[in-house]
Amino acid sequence: MQNAAGPNFLADCPARLAVEILSDKWAALVLFGLNDAPRRHGELVKIVGGVSRKVLTETLRRLQSSGLVQRIEEPPRHVQYRLTDVGRELIGPIESLNTWASANAADIEAHREASWTE
Amino acid sequence: MQNAAGPNFLADCPARLAVEILSDKWAALVLFGLNDAPRRHGELVKIVGGVSRKVLTETLRRLQSSGLVQRIEEPPRHVQYRLTDVGRELIGPIESLNTWASANAADIEAHREASWTE
Repeated sequence: MQNAAGPNFLADCPARLAVEILSDKWAALVLFGLNDAPRRHGELVKIVGGVSRKVLTETLRRLQSSGLVQRIEEPPRHVQYRLTDVGRELIGPIESLNTWASANAADIEAHREASWTE
Repeated sequence: MQNAAGPNFLADCPARLAVEILSDKWAALVLFGLNDAPRRHGELVKIVGGVSRKVLTETLRRLQSSGLVQRIEEPPRHVQYRLTDVGRELIGPIESLNTWASANAADIEAHREASWTE
């Protein structure tokens, strides 16, 4: 997003960074899955539900590369994933999106159906 | 997202609906632009900053079709846009994403740059 506008303009919206991260289909679920405790890969597959091992690996890598998740190696061959502080601080905002969406999903769906049949 | 999993699984995540709406590049900015008062199309172009009239029209239509924004016609030829209750309730969650992103953008950027050069 461009940020050439002055202070009276809204063109710079930091929320886009969060939205970009959460646009990753499984990102929010993986963050929630790590909220209680560090988890091994296999545990996360079960907790998240519906994600393949390969896609979970890719999601974890992207969250690691943004510094939201940390990979902890404990030899021999014991690897866990845990939230960083930055990742943990995103749990609250995601919950507020969940609350909003749960309260309004039916209303939004009804509007969309009405607009399709106009 | 599939929801075939039981209650111990996270596979149903209502936040995805909010993320989908906010993935629309200008959606959050338009919602903020309508937060204080109903606005005419030309006012919104100025307030949002950097959006073309055509793209603003498309963004408004999508927000209308989801029931977040309402188009108010006052004859003759006076049209305004305002937030619905559903749209207004999304302002708080967006603000919490903004707060998180503003606080952590530099950290995230640093992690990403480090991961690119690994």
